Amino acid sequence: MNTAQNLHALRQAMIMWEIDAYIIPSSDPHQSEYVADHWKVREWLSGFDGSAGTLVVTQDWAGLWTDSRYFLQAEQQLAGSGIALMKKEVGKGLEYDEYLAEKLTAGSIVGLDGRLFSVFQLQLMEETLSLAEIEIAINSFLIESIWLKRPLLSDAPIVVHDLKYAGQSRVEKLSEIRAKMREMDADVYLVAALDEIAWLFNLRGSDTAFNPVFYAYASITKFETYLFVDAKKLSNVLQNQLAMDQIQIKAYGDFQNFIAKVAEEKVVLYDDKTLSAIHYIAIKSDFQIELNLIKRLKATKNEVQLAHLRKTMEKDGFALLKTFRWLEQELSKRTVSEYELGVQIAHFRSQQSHYREESFHPIVGYEANGAIVHYRATEKVAAAIQNKGILLVDSGGQYLDGTTDITRTVALGTPSDAQKHHFTLVLKGHIALARICFPAGTSGHQLDVLARQALWKQHLDYGHGTGHGVGFFLNVHESPPGISPSASSSGERSEFLSGMIVSNEPGYYETGEYGIRIENLILCVKDQESEQYGTFLKFETLSLFPIDQQLIDFDLLDQEEINWLNNYHQEVYVRLLPYLNTREQEWLKNKCRIYQT
Amino acid sequence: MNTAQNLHALRQAMIMWEIDAYIIPSSDPHQSEYVADHWKVREWLSGFDGSAGTLVVTQDWAGLWTDSRYFLQAEQQLAGSGIALMKKEVGKGLEYDEYLAEKLTAGSIVGLDGRLFSVFQLQLMEETLSLAEIEIAINSFLIESIWLKRPLLSDAPIVVHDLKYAGQSRVEKLSEIRAKMREMDADVYLVAALDEIAWLFNLRGSDTAFNPVFYAYASITKFETYLFVDAKKLSNVLQNQLAMDQIQIKAYGDFQNFIAKVAEEKVVLYDDKTLSAIHYIAIKSDFQIELNLIKRLKATKNEVQLAHLRKTMEKDGFALLKTFRWLEQELSKRTVSEYELGVQIAHFRSQQSHYREESFHPIVGYEANGAIVHYRATEKVAAAIQNKGILLVDSGGQYLDGTTDITRTVALGTPSDAQKHHFTLVLKGHIALARICFPAGTSGHQLDVLARQALWKQHLDYGHGTGHGVGFFLNVHESPPGISPSASSSGERSEFLSGMIVSNEPGYYETGEYGIRIENLILCVKDQESEQYGTFLKFETLSLFPIDQQLIDFDLLDQEEINWLNNYHQEVYVRLLPYLNTREQEWLKNKCRIYQT
Repeated sequence: MNTAQNLHALRQAMIMWEIDAYIIPSSDPHQSEYVADHWKVREWLSGFDGSAGTLVVTQDWAGLWTDSRYFLQAEQQLAGSGIALMKKEVGKGLEYDEYLAEKLTAGSIVGLDGRLFSVFQLQLMEETLSLAEIEIAINSFLIESIWLKRPLLSDAPIVVHDLKYAGQSRVEKLSEIRAKMREMDADVYLVAALDEIAWLFNLRGSDTAFNPVFYAYASITKFETYLFVDAKKLSNVLQNQLAMDQIQIKAYGDFQNFIAKVAEEKVVLYDDKTLSAIHYIAIKSDFQIELNLIKRLKATKNEVQLAHLRKTMEKDGFALLKTFRWLEQELSKRTVSEYELGVQIAHFRSQQSHYREESFHPIVGYEANGAIVHYRATEKVAAAIQNKGILLVDSGGQYLDGTTDITRTVALGTPSDAQKHHFTLVLKGHIALARICFPAGTSGHQLDVLARQALWKQHLDYGHGTGHGVGFFLNVHESPPGISPSASSSGERSEFLSGMIVSNEPGYYETGEYGIRIENLILCVKDQESEQYGTFLKFETLSLFPIDQQLIDFDLLDQEEINWLNNYHQEVYVRLLPYLNTREQEWLKNKCRIYQT
Repeated sequence: MNTAQNLHALRQAMIMWEIDAYIIPSSDPHQSEYVADHWKVREWLSGFDGSAGTLVVTQDWAGLWTDSRYFLQAEQQLAGSGIALMKKEVGKGLEYDEYLAEKLTAGSIVGLDGRLFSVFQLQLMEETLSLAEIEIAINSFLIESIWLKRPLLSDAPIVVHDLKYAGQSRVEKLSEIRAKMREMDADVYLVAALDEIAWLFNLRGSDTAFNPVFYAYASITKFETYLFVDAKKLSNVLQNQLAMDQIQIKAYGDFQNFIAKVAEEKVVLYDDKTLSAIHYIAIKSDFQIELNLIKRLKATKNEVQLAHLRKTMEKDGFALLKTFRWLEQELSKRTVSEYELGVQIAHFRSQQSHYREESFHPIVGYEANGAIVHYRATEKVAAAIQNKGILLVDSGGQYLDGTTDITRTVALGTPSDAQKHHFTLVLKGHIALARICFPAGTSGHQLDVLARQALWKQHLDYGHGTGHGVGFFLNVHESPPGISPSASSSGERSEFLSGMIVSNEPGYYETGEYGIRIENLILCVKDQESEQYGTFLKFETLSLFPIDQQLIDFDLLDQEEINWLNNYHQEVYVRLLPYLNTREQEWLKNKCRIYQT
């Protein structure tokens, strides 16, 4: 069945349901970043397989909204489908709601599957469409009957995330949450985000790629805890463990009925960015939390997790060392495809203890491809890396004992002055953020400029945020915290707390030429107490791999920046040393050589 | 009549009106920063005369919420009144609504004068109180009958702000606004902020201190313009001028009736931060603008205004030079009270052309008083300035050709190493902000850290924002723009535009010892076009007065910072020179001496 046939079938269904426009988003019922194949409805219907995009279909028109990362790819994949590419600006709202408000006549009905939209999204849409007197039918499940060969949801087993890694038992976590619920006079707390559920119960799954999560909902009341999940994913042993912890297992599909019953209670907490619109209508109380309770607890790593993570960074740096040494050796003999290098990174990581999978699809961007921020080489389409130019490699691993995410840009031949200049400006930004200390209460949007100021002075910039939160053997993107120019996307109220981890990844992209990004994970730690201003915080750099000194114009660095770099390289060397054989030690010693002024 | 009698009379009125709690804010019906005596209800009732504070009265309790700037003063002024001091945290909402929600029983009625609360404030209050089932009666005008000797509103004449200063006629401004209203499909635009009305009509008044505004409302429809103002303030000539510009004069009190009539129209624009709650209830349409149209136009100064302002800065620097020379001369003979110095500044400003009044109450803080951010010396209570220690002077003038605001901190004897260290850290922040360039679209909250980072590295900080917008012969505080840590207070969407003016005023305060602040006004100007990132903007420093080099530890400055300082001092010297006699020239030459490394 091709796109034309799929669209035709959908339009027939729309006529039956008396729907004038139907909206198909990219998401699953939990607003996950990576969704199971079962939920890839937009991809199935449109043929476009980018991670972000919303399809809108009317009887005589269809359009797909996606952002600049995917314009080229969408243009190619939508060619001949009759689906128009609608170029969406980042941060400018949904956009398709405004389009519909303008195109549809008053009294029209817009249909959608209310499981796939968050409460927040539906409210945005309602605001726009109600002004144009357009109705939204959120119970329009039109795809079920027309996607005949739809992949089933996985029944992969759910496994325990051991206490020795988690550092806190599920019973302790529940009791901490209940204490906060009491403070807020809350009766029920509904949880829809998959990584929050995995964290809460110290469980992991494999229902989606890259994120070790499983499809489930959770609900915490004053005295009871419910996990809504397909019970066949739980072994008998695990079921007994959960029962002993007073956790009641209910069917995944029972969540809606549960909500309908508790709706009479006084205060219901939920995150309007992850709870589905379809669940919201069952809630009569108007109370909600702006900053999800679990999100903040999950983002604040405990000492057990951090002790593991520091070791994991050593393993991950070692795997990267193996990868880059392998690349150098191969390049002396032959070219290596970007795709092959991505496979090789995963291979070397997989030799490390407790490795499970990559934490996202590796971005291996050679020369001009490095300038495409979300570039993804495939087995069929990948550039051949040679002994010249510069190469950007952004990758990460999922280990039982932590999640990594690191980017290095390396020169494979003699870099140009412009490349060294740009690399050094990016490095200055990276170091400024790595070295800052700041009073407690500071949020990510306040620090973003530190990573950009050196570029700005040359009238340069980069078009992405500077940092994202990172989970512990969980999603490589989690919030809070975050570092970006906008307070709304990094969260106005998401001040840094000791134990939070973010990426520090400024970049520079010369379109058609090359891309530069330097990324380490950094951990927020206590610096010292100030009598007048309370606690000051700072960052500890976690990731361990040398920064390519061939690309540095040392004349642009001041003494404090050089000191930081030398100290960082000394630490990388000392901490990776125990993992290395003699040749590897020599290789690393050269890469970590101390720069003398 | 004293506070006890006033409170008793209010409580009697509350019984008659069946009101359980009555709220008295500091504001007037336009949410002005400086209010006419007529509107100083809270001061009259409580005896507390700080600029910020909200009084709440029940039958058996009364409390006044104010922030840390006023804790000491409020404690003194409320002593014996039976009014409790309620310490409010900045940025934490209204607070008194939460207090009332907790203390009052369901079914209680909270009364207030709905003219004195903005739509936004009322909505905040309703959110909190409705959960506790408490009703708000916004038509409770209880003060009218009990404040017998209430000052009348001023009938000072309104004067024209000449086109040669304004640079744009009121007809042009109205047509620009109507063009924007058409884009937004807006039918009516209601204006309540006094400085917006003064700007729009090129008129100025003197109904309040420091701000050259007059009490009025305005309304712009597709084809008509209304000015709601007491007609006796307008001369016949002015009335004719306005009539020729198609502006219809209506009585101040007719605004409410006007709104009731236009309410049926489709789209009504207003600023929910300045329009009164009492007017809002008359509006049936739910549309509003987040960023007031006039605010942004007013904040973006035109070339005519800027040409005047650059000259005004020279006059203002000259007046400051006279003041500080006078102080040095007097101190060689006697002590000078802080109050006297404030009077003297105004005196020297008043010798300059087109001077009208000070733009705010001068802050002259000697030694420990400099550490009190909103310190105000009075004739009766003021420290005696001697030939030692350090002195902070923050003042500004209202001239027909512009508004100024400048702070200098000077050493009157040999400063300590700690003082020099702190002063230099503040200076580093000041210079970092003065030197930054940034892509168009950047907002104030992104730049704030630049002014703080040098202090943060020493675990120091200051407890106020870094910059506020400044009007042109209008309010010394206007928004947008602004530079502060919080996106909400500086305005998430208030990106800098070429022509906007902000203050650059980092500081440091050693409680009980001394205060340091270095403030210049800076103008956002175009820097250059970048092919990939569009327009870059930068700041031009407007204020002209030397920065005290006795207080600088030059070892802490890098070469670029020293270059900035030398260039600034060269410009100050060259531009003030034509105003000076020989002795003054010598004095300035020494203050502006070039630092050689």
